[in-house]
Amino acid sequence: MARTMGPVRLKKTSPTTVAVGAALCIFILYFLLGSSTSDFSASRKATAALHPLSPPTSPFRQSTSGGKPKPPPVMRYNLNNVTITGNPVENNENILVLTPMARFYQGYWDNLLQLTYPHELITLGFIIPKNREGNAAYAELDKQITKTQKFAPEKDRFKSIIILRQDFEPPLSSQDEAERHKMQNQMPRRAAMAKARNSLLFTTLGPATSWVLWLDADIIETPPTLIQDLAHHDRPLIVPNCFQRYYNGEKKKMDERPYDFNNWQDSPTAQKMASEMGADDILLEGYRDMPTYRTLMAYMEENGGDVHQEVPLDGVGGTALLVKADVHRDGAMFPPFSFYHLIETEGFAKMAKRLGWQATGLPNYKVYHYNE
Amino acid sequence: MARTMGPVRLKKTSPTTVAVGAALCIFILYFLLGSSTSDFSASRKATAALHPLSPPTSPFRQSTSGGKPKPPPVMRYNLNNVTITGNPVENNENILVLTPMARFYQGYWDNLLQLTYPHELITLGFIIPKNREGNAAYAELDKQITKTQKFAPEKDRFKSIIILRQDFEPPLSSQDEAERHKMQNQMPRRAAMAKARNSLLFTTLGPATSWVLWLDADIIETPPTLIQDLAHHDRPLIVPNCFQRYYNGEKKKMDERPYDFNNWQDSPTAQKMASEMGADDILLEGYRDMPTYRTLMAYMEENGGDVHQEVPLDGVGGTALLVKADVHRDGAMFPPFSFYHLIETEGFAKMAKRLGWQATGLPNYKVYHYNE
Repeated sequence: MARTMGPVRLKKTSPTTVAVGAALCIFILYFLLGSSTSDFSASRKATAALHPLSPPTSPFRQSTSGGKPKPPPVMRYNLNNVTITGNPVENNENILVLTPMARFYQGYWDNLLQLTYPHELITLGFIIPKNREGNAAYAELDKQITKTQKFAPEKDRFKSIIILRQDFEPPLSSQDEAERHKMQNQMPRRAAMAKARNSLLFTTLGPATSWVLWLDADIIETPPTLIQDLAHHDRPLIVPNCFQRYYNGEKKKMDERPYDFNNWQDSPTAQKMASEMGADDILLEGYRDMPTYRTLMAYMEENGGDVHQEVPLDGVGGTALLVKADVHRDGAMFPPFSFYHLIETEGFAKMAKRLGWQATGLPNYKVYHYNE
Repeated sequence: MARTMGPVRLKKTSPTTVAVGAALCIFILYFLLGSSTSDFSASRKATAALHPLSPPTSPFRQSTSGGKPKPPPVMRYNLNNVTITGNPVENNENILVLTPMARFYQGYWDNLLQLTYPHELITLGFIIPKNREGNAAYAELDKQITKTQKFAPEKDRFKSIIILRQDFEPPLSSQDEAERHKMQNQMPRRAAMAKARNSLLFTTLGPATSWVLWLDADIIETPPTLIQDLAHHDRPLIVPNCFQRYYNGEKKKMDERPYDFNNWQDSPTAQKMASEMGADDILLEGYRDMPTYRTLMAYMEENGGDVHQEVPLDGVGGTALLVKADVHRDGAMFPPFSFYHLIETEGFAKMAKRLGWQATGLPNYKVYHYNE
């Protein structure tokens, strides 16, 4: 495949960096859905009892009826039927949508709302830095959450929402885009992002989660059937192609261009570069100074090509990434250190592979990144 | 330090192997504590509301009072004060005690019960293989849990208990002890154990967890103040010395001997061996055919020595291992693959180190392993 070395437009895992610091500040929002007497509500109530995504690690107390306490029974949940299949809707499979968020984009939320996957099977998890920018994002998000969870039709409401707030160090998010993308800033930035992802993952994944969708806060447009479409491939980890819409001044019309350069197939050049590196050094994709000659999925897209076409990948990005929960449960996380000279989402793909799980890409299935 | 190459008595991370298989079978037991009107119960109720260990990812429904539903409020939990300190009792720090269990030992449960750390701050998590041996262990455990959580004084009851059941492959647990310890069987056995630990960790760790105590099912004797004592050192990961009581035929009396050989300081010999190994090969400790000349904490114990004496470690075992939850949240897990030629708990120590966390051992602080 011909490799275009165009202008260096870097993939951003998130518009801002979120890092792990000393204090952990956690907000959990959960929304009491009231007691609508509709059938829908009743069925959801049953689901709640049978499929708690996370185990109840705080002491559970049965509600009293008429002020009279019931005797303390022993409760058991047999979740033997937590399936992970290509037909997740039919099989009632819970999905955890995880988003590191430093800025709030209305397009992100609107896109989330229009996903046709049953919202009562979707849990949202956010990690937001505890700084001024994060506070602003939190406030905006909070407003939308309230609107949806309290006032939207019940079918639009999500199963539950978890927000983690975290101090972070160093405070990288104040860097502007150019500064953020400088090569020497990438290692600490992506290590911090990896820790934020791990923190979010380790604290929200429950025993009844079938799927995890990593969705960056700046992804503002996906097909409404994103989850079903990706899951239908029944692959351990799978990524669509992340593009960006922009105004093409030459053509004088809106156009689109590839955005995420972290989805790639390895090259002998990159392998050789890695073998000559120091133990802690990492390979980065998309820098002129460091041409890897990897095959980038960003350039594999064919206009009008089959959206279901699959390619095997060695590195993945995190803008939109569907993972079978068992891949994470086996131990696959986002290395915040050099792992085979890879870091964060790219290191995750390698770690999954070490665990026996192969990454898959869909060059013609597109999602869109915000244009700053 | 003189190194004794005595009879090869291997450390066993758990008496049986637990592996990850296709189907995930999960039982969650949680125990309604009734509605005792004692002050204790009331304070525990308050704790429950403020510090859910895991976020409520299933839709929460407010209990109705007098049959009348309340309007659906938005609930927020600010868990900014989740501390991890050397004084965990004073600071109300939640601890998750995680145990892979293939056989049930009454001594394990009795020892757990006598721990003086406030039980309302302790969540227990178990992973038990879904086979005949596992079913037997589950039945025994279940009996004891019911006894404690329903009938014991409220102060003895644990905050909550989670049991994961998991199919496993290959079914290694049917091997006898000698077979299990053969060098060629160690790699798949420990990889399976690592996956079981990861599965347990990823699905039970919550945002309000301060500490994780890994405690093997065959640890039957520890000081009652184990948690406070280890936490008091305020180290990211810390291990006591695991011994075993036995009848010394020569001395004609009960005696004790070191048991866990996975707590060690690295040696140039081991480093050199690792550098000459294939990428997927691992170093094992305690095999005559593979002398590493590492310094083993097992042999550092001094009769009557200071129990608070600390030594830095490069590898740790999992028989009893206290970890700050942030170490796990940063991404430290149990590698089921060769990681710097280490696997499972030993690989975990290395991974923690890559994340900037140093392991500490207490040569004179002893816990005791069951004697088969």
